[in-house]
Amino acid sequence: MEQQILIKGVEWQGRSTDILIEGACIKQVAEAIPPSVGVVIDGRGKAVIPGLVNAHTHAAMTLFRGIGDDMPLTLWLKEKMWPNEAKLTYEDVYWGAKLACLEMMKSGTTAFMDMYHKLPATAEAVEEMGIRGVLTCACFDHFKPELTEKSKQKMEALFAGTVAYGSRVKFALGPHAIYTVSGALLQWIDAFSKEHNLPVHIHLSETEDEVNNSVKQFGCTPVRYLNKLGVLSPRLSIAHALYVDEEEIRMLADKGVKVVHNPASNMKLASGMAFRFAEMREAGITVGIGTDGCSSSNNLDMIEAMKLASLLGKAWRKDPEALPAGAMLHAATAQGADILGVKTGRIEAGYLADLCLIDLHTPAFTPNHNFVSNLIYAANGSAVDTVICDGKIRMQNRKVPGEEDILKQVTEIAKKFV
Amino acid sequence: MEQQILIKGVEWQGRSTDILIEGACIKQVAEAIPPSVGVVIDGRGKAVIPGLVNAHTHAAMTLFRGIGDDMPLTLWLKEKMWPNEAKLTYEDVYWGAKLACLEMMKSGTTAFMDMYHKLPATAEAVEEMGIRGVLTCACFDHFKPELTEKSKQKMEALFAGTVAYGSRVKFALGPHAIYTVSGALLQWIDAFSKEHNLPVHIHLSETEDEVNNSVKQFGCTPVRYLNKLGVLSPRLSIAHALYVDEEEIRMLADKGVKVVHNPASNMKLASGMAFRFAEMREAGITVGIGTDGCSSSNNLDMIEAMKLASLLGKAWRKDPEALPAGAMLHAATAQGADILGVKTGRIEAGYLADLCLIDLHTPAFTPNHNFVSNLIYAANGSAVDTVICDGKIRMQNRKVPGEEDILKQVTEIAKKFV
Repeated sequence: MEQQILIKGVEWQGRSTDILIEGACIKQVAEAIPPSVGVVIDGRGKAVIPGLVNAHTHAAMTLFRGIGDDMPLTLWLKEKMWPNEAKLTYEDVYWGAKLACLEMMKSGTTAFMDMYHKLPATAEAVEEMGIRGVLTCACFDHFKPELTEKSKQKMEALFAGTVAYGSRVKFALGPHAIYTVSGALLQWIDAFSKEHNLPVHIHLSETEDEVNNSVKQFGCTPVRYLNKLGVLSPRLSIAHALYVDEEEIRMLADKGVKVVHNPASNMKLASGMAFRFAEMREAGITVGIGTDGCSSSNNLDMIEAMKLASLLGKAWRKDPEALPAGAMLHAATAQGADILGVKTGRIEAGYLADLCLIDLHTPAFTPNHNFVSNLIYAANGSAVDTVICDGKIRMQNRKVPGEEDILKQVTEIAKKFV
Repeated sequence: MEQQILIKGVEWQGRSTDILIEGACIKQVAEAIPPSVGVVIDGRGKAVIPGLVNAHTHAAMTLFRGIGDDMPLTLWLKEKMWPNEAKLTYEDVYWGAKLACLEMMKSGTTAFMDMYHKLPATAEAVEEMGIRGVLTCACFDHFKPELTEKSKQKMEALFAGTVAYGSRVKFALGPHAIYTVSGALLQWIDAFSKEHNLPVHIHLSETEDEVNNSVKQFGCTPVRYLNKLGVLSPRLSIAHALYVDEEEIRMLADKGVKVVHNPASNMKLASGMAFRFAEMREAGITVGIGTDGCSSSNNLDMIEAMKLASLLGKAWRKDPEALPAGAMLHAATAQGADILGVKTGRIEAGYLADLCLIDLHTPAFTPNHNFVSNLIYAANGSAVDTVICDGKIRMQNRKVPGEEDILKQVTEIAKKFV
């Protein structure tokens, strides 16, 4: 028999509930499950939520946390990001991704969509840390045919390599953006993703400049351009989508394209605030939430990201009823899971056992008139006490095995970045 | 000799520093202070910041956390806030304020400006918890002369009563707003504050409706109306000030009026986002930051409030350089202290010893390329390890004496609020 974990008496949807985990999956959710032979976790004084899904980040950029804040975008890229990224080794990315996984676990995230360089280093980190990563290698050809061919070969090789990883690591395709990747390569990526049933993840409609340049270069806005190329599909998710009109929302909905909102990054880089959450949801689009990388959002706290999404949405719409707490939790769990293409994000028999226990004995949850409201509006990542991913306990009492070593290693490694 | 505390080897402005506290004040800040006979705190692996100043809140409203979120303003007031406030007893306010003080301590706040009912209950809570409160009793006369007189008598009595409190509790005057307090009462309050040198705190220019109604009722916008009444003075601080034009900013600056920005509340209630931080600072106005009460902002975390202020400011201005991290920390410490009229908010000999130690062994501060940036953009209130207020250790290792009892009492009391 597979290993069992029984969580007894945890708060779930306002009631005391038991949850039985067998192997990697949730086996039963009920009011009173008899104790089994496996591990029993006392859930009293805690609430359970699905593990959060960070649907857009660049994990290893934790290394650049706090470098180049409060700077204009082009200066930041030219003086800070590119020179530092040029120094990155495999080991740097590995430790940066380890720190990212640690930080995500400590704030309740059990799965993430990544786009970065040196994918195998990130994959190694994810395997060791015990959470899930859908990993893309940022791909650019800068409209040069020789780089297009190189990119294809690289992606084929990476895809072939990832079959070696366990079930928690998935390979996906990460064309960086329409201004760095040619139409030909975007079409090849779409075909490759169809052939192998792989998610595709791209930055799109993030800034006004990007939209204006798209109109100049391709004769239409970014979503219309992808539509013309024929690459809108249910396998595609787009990060940002701040500048999309009614017709583009309809195009995305018709083709089953998914969208990831990154409020912290959009605000901090002053990219824009007009994220059309309500219109996208009404059109039937799956909308998740991401933190973006730590060089633009500075942390990977999805509880903070949910609050920011809601507050920004209310302020921009001048409507205190907009983007309510429950919708934020749904976006950061079930919807995020659908974007990653992983059967997680729900507390139901048959789903992967990716769960967080929230400590209710804190000011943020006192009084506990409304748990979801307290979680989104009053709490932050530090509310997470226990993390279970893939049916295994990964954090308990906020302690993750090996965390001191990760902080030490990254502190050393990061000295070369300025 | 007064009691001494020596903090050894703490990070301050990028260097390892020692801080000597004697009695309630900072006595010396230097690189190597010889150990004294008093308590020695090992500051290694920690950074020090001035205790944060929450310049606008309604402490006891912690009791209503999570009641009536995601609702339109008038429905929220009529169906949730007013019926619940009608039930409030002295004991309720006392325990609500105790919870607020606990929450503030656990997120690094050592002083706050309060506006609420049953001031003595809040004063008792502040005295016991060991932080500072500048306390106003929300005052309304609803333009009825009989209530004007009652209000005056009430304020005189409260002021007379507060001489009994220790140095950490100060009395101030809290006219609620221009739509609930008559011009005559505002002028009396101004004169009373001048006579006794007391701060005055009011909500002003919070919503577009308020401004439109002011123009209808008084023939001018809110700041102009106060100017006409002759009540703009250096003793006055105004919370919100979202709708002020160039000339009003000049009026505020000329009269030495101070301003408190409440980004979480403004966003969540969809009051507006156009806070003119840069213009006010350029005009020489002292600008602090507040959380507002837990019924509109849901927590009292000033580290989160600093991040929100910066992110909202950048997004609204479309400028990633706006509202930089250092300016946010200055607003939430030195500027807030000036608003409260308390000699705190700076780490310098002669200032009150209100300090927080921040634990640097966490993901948010790894790597530590830029401490202030990490504090504002990556951390949250849970980063605070130790709180000293008035020269006494109030929290160490995140433990506050009696916290379990406060959570238990509030949980019980809050059951009657729905």
